[in-house]
Amino acid sequence: MNIMTENESQQSKGHTTEAELPQSAPDLENAHPADAALHLENLPLEEQVRAVSGLPVQEAADSIVEMSRHDRIEIMRNLQPEAAAGLISAMALDDAADVLEELGYEHRDILLKYMGTEEAAEIKSLMAFDPDTAGGVMNTELLVLDEKLSVDEAIQLIRKEVEDKEIPYYAYIVDDAEHLVGVLSMRDLLLSKPRTVLGALIGTQSLISVTFDVDKEEVAHLISHYNFLAIPVVDYSDKLLGVVTVDDVIDIIHEEATEDMQTMVGAASDETVDSPWTYSMSRRLPWLTINILTSAASAWVVSLFEGTIAQMAFLAVLMPIVANQAGNTGQQALAVMIRQLAVKKLERKESWLAVLREAKIGLANGSIIATLVLGVVYFMTGQLSLASIMAMALFLDMLVGSLAGASIPLILRALGRDPAQASSIFLTTLTDSFGFFSLLGLAGIYLIG
Amino acid sequence: MNIMTENESQQSKGHTTEAELPQSAPDLENAHPADAALHLENLPLEEQVRAVSGLPVQEAADSIVEMSRHDRIEIMRNLQPEAAAGLISAMALDDAADVLEELGYEHRDILLKYMGTEEAAEIKSLMAFDPDTAGGVMNTELLVLDEKLSVDEAIQLIRKEVEDKEIPYYAYIVDDAEHLVGVLSMRDLLLSKPRTVLGALIGTQSLISVTFDVDKEEVAHLISHYNFLAIPVVDYSDKLLGVVTVDDVIDIIHEEATEDMQTMVGAASDETVDSPWTYSMSRRLPWLTINILTSAASAWVVSLFEGTIAQMAFLAVLMPIVANQAGNTGQQALAVMIRQLAVKKLERKESWLAVLREAKIGLANGSIIATLVLGVVYFMTGQLSLASIMAMALFLDMLVGSLAGASIPLILRALGRDPAQASSIFLTTLTDSFGFFSLLGLAGIYLIG
Repeated sequence: MNIMTENESQQSKGHTTEAELPQSAPDLENAHPADAALHLENLPLEEQVRAVSGLPVQEAADSIVEMSRHDRIEIMRNLQPEAAAGLISAMALDDAADVLEELGYEHRDILLKYMGTEEAAEIKSLMAFDPDTAGGVMNTELLVLDEKLSVDEAIQLIRKEVEDKEIPYYAYIVDDAEHLVGVLSMRDLLLSKPRTVLGALIGTQSLISVTFDVDKEEVAHLISHYNFLAIPVVDYSDKLLGVVTVDDVIDIIHEEATEDMQTMVGAASDETVDSPWTYSMSRRLPWLTINILTSAASAWVVSLFEGTIAQMAFLAVLMPIVANQAGNTGQQALAVMIRQLAVKKLERKESWLAVLREAKIGLANGSIIATLVLGVVYFMTGQLSLASIMAMALFLDMLVGSLAGASIPLILRALGRDPAQASSIFLTTLTDSFGFFSLLGLAGIYLIG
Repeated sequence: MNIMTENESQQSKGHTTEAELPQSAPDLENAHPADAALHLENLPLEEQVRAVSGLPVQEAADSIVEMSRHDRIEIMRNLQPEAAAGLISAMALDDAADVLEELGYEHRDILLKYMGTEEAAEIKSLMAFDPDTAGGVMNTELLVLDEKLSVDEAIQLIRKEVEDKEIPYYAYIVDDAEHLVGVLSMRDLLLSKPRTVLGALIGTQSLISVTFDVDKEEVAHLISHYNFLAIPVVDYSDKLLGVVTVDDVIDIIHEEATEDMQTMVGAASDETVDSPWTYSMSRRLPWLTINILTSAASAWVVSLFEGTIAQMAFLAVLMPIVANQAGNTGQQALAVMIRQLAVKKLERKESWLAVLREAKIGLANGSIIATLVLGVVYFMTGQLSLASIMAMALFLDMLVGSLAGASIPLILRALGRDPAQASSIFLTTLTDSFGFFSLLGLAGIYLIG
C-alpha cells in the first residue's frame, strides 16, 4: 500500500458515483490500480505477463502491488529480470520489500543486482524487519519536518516536495537527532500563523507511537481503538523509522479475520480462491491427518463399548446426535471467544468470567435441549431409562462443549500459540469422545450391566 | 464515531509511546474516550451510572459512544431523562441517532422531548435511514464549501469554523443546488494559489460517492478497495447528505467478520463477552434446536441399518471417524468460501471455479487419507473387505464435504440469505448423513448382505 494521498484517497479515473465496481477494466492504463489488479487476476499467466509488460512501469507496479500474493509471485518470476527490477524500483519501498520477500532468495538477489546500490540497501534494511511487526508493514516515504522550521518555511518545502513525491496527511516533526517530537496535519499548517515555529506549534502534545517490533495486530488495534489515520513507528531511542497508515490496517484486519476463521478448522491462513489448489491441499492435509488421528481416539472410546452396542444397536443411532449437538454447542462458544480475542476485548477482562458466562449458557441450553430429547426418545421408544440416559449424556456433553469451546482458545493463547489454530478440531475430539463415553457408559451400567 | 480530526487522530492525553493500552483509566475525565469506555465497561451498572453522571457532559458523551452496545443501553436507560438527553445532544448527530435507535421507542420519544425541536428533527431524519446502509452509518457534520469560493475565502471560512467545530480532512465542494461536485483535501487548499476558485481547482476530477441506500458492507469494501479515507454519501439527485469515514469502516469490517464467524455456527451476530448470558442463550437456542433436528435426521439414516450394526458392532466404531473427518474437510472449504465472499473476491470470479477448486482439493486429500485408513484398518482387523468399505465411504464423504462446504455459502447467497448463517450446521448434517449411509450401506451389501 502507498501512503494515502488526495490522489489515491478520493480521485479515481473513469468511475461514476455508482457503488458497484467495474466488472472488468479493459483500459488497464487508466483504471484504478485496484481495478487493474482485479482484471489481471482473472487472466491466465501468459496474458498477465503480457499485459503487465505492456503497461507503463508506474501503472504496472501499482497494479502488481494490489494483486493477490500468488498471482503476483508468478508474474514477477516470469518477467525478464530487468523488467521485474524496474517494477520493484517503481514501488514504494515497503511494497518493494514485501514483493521481494515473497519471491524467495535466488530471485530476490538477482533482482537486487539490477537495482541502484543505495535503493537495494534501503530495501534490504526494510526486509530485515519481521513482516508481522510494525517495522514490517510501515511506510518509509513520509514527510519529515525539522521542528525549527516556521510554518511558511514548511509550506514552501512541501510545495517543492509535492512535485516529485506523494504527500501524506501528516507531517512528522523531528529534532536535530531525528527523534520524533510531534505530528502536525496539513490542516494545522493551513490554520496556523505563518511565522510560528513548528516546535512551538506542537507544544506539549503527547504522541502515541509504536516501536518497530510491536506486533502488526497490536498496531491495527491501536489505530482502530483510537480512530487514528496513521501511527508513527520509532526505534528504542525514539528515532522516527516510518508510519503505519489506516489503509494498511484495514488489510491487516482482513488478514487476521481470514486467518482466524481458516486456521480454526485447519485450512491455511492465507488461502484464497486464487491460490493454487495444490497449495491449499498440501496445507490442509497435515491437519486432516491430525483430525483422523483424534477422531480415531474418540472411536476408540466407542470400541470399549462394542459389546454394549452389539446388545443394543439403537445406541449407535443416538451416538451421533449427542456428539453433533455438543460439537455445535461448543463451536458457538468457540466462535465468540475467538472473535473477542481478535478485537482485544478479552485482554481487558478476566478470562474466567467469559468461561463462566459460556458455562451458564451451556447449562441453560443443555437442560432445555436435554428435556426436549428426553420427551421425544421416551415417546419413540417407550423406554424411560434409555430416554433419561440419552438426555443425561446430551446435557453433560453440551456442558463439556461449552467449557471446551470457551477454554481452548485461552489455553492455546496461554501456551503462546494462535488461539484459533485447529481449535475446532480439538473441540470436536473432546465432545465426540466424552459424548460417546457418557452415553455408552451410562447405557452399559444401567441398561445392560 | 466522530469525524476524524487531528485532535482525535493523533493526539491523546496521558499516553506514552508504548504500544500497550492502559489497563485502567482512573482519571476518566482526561483519558481518551476509548480508554474511558473500556474502564466503564468493567464496572457494575450503578457505578457506571455514577461515573458517567460525574463526568463533564462532553467527556461522558464521547465515552458512551465508544462503549459496547449492551453497556451503553443499560447506562442510558438508568440515567435521568434530562441527563440522558443532554448526553445525546453532546454527541455527533449520527452517534446520537444510533444510541436513540438502540434505546427503543418509549425511551427514545421521552428523550427527544427533552431536546431542541430542530435537533430532534435532524436526529429523527437520520434515524429514518436503514442502519445497515451508507445513510445509517454516515456522519453529517462535514465541511461543505461553495464551488464559487476562492481558496483564501475558503481558508478564512475554515479558520472561523474551526473554533466551534471539528474540521475533517476533506472539504466537500457543492454547487448552488447543494449537489456534490468535488472533494478537496486541506492539503490541496494549502498548496493552491489563494486566488484560485474552488470550482476551477477540482477541475474534472471524477469522484466516487455512494447513494444513501448502498449496503454498509459495500461502502466498507469500496473504501478499503480504493484506500480511501472517506466516501461521500449522496441522494439520487447527487445532493450531498453526509460522509462515511475510514474509522467507521474499520468498525464495520470488525462487525462483519464477527457476524460471519458467529452466525456460521448459530451464535448471534452481535454477541460479545459483555452481552448478558441470557441474551446469548436465547439467540443460540433456536439454532441448537434446528441442529438437534438435523442430527436426528442423520441418526435416522443410522436407524435404517440397526440390523447391520447389531450383526457388526465394529461399524459403530468406524461411523464417527467418517462423519467427523468429512465434516472437518467440509469446514475447511466453508471457511475459505465465507472469507472470500466477505472480502468480495468471489463477486468477480465465476463461483463454479471456486467449487471446482475445492472439489480437486477434496479428491486429492480424500484419496490420501482414505489410502492411509485402508492400510490401518486392514492392519488392525485383517479384513480387507471391511478396510476397503471404510476407505471408500471416507473418500466419498470427504468429497461430499468439500462440495457441500464450497456450495452452501453460494446457495445461501443465491437464496438471498447471509452466506454464513448456520452454514456449518447444514454442512455437518450432510456429511453425517451421507457418511453413515455410505459406510453402513456398503457394509450391509458387501459384508452382511
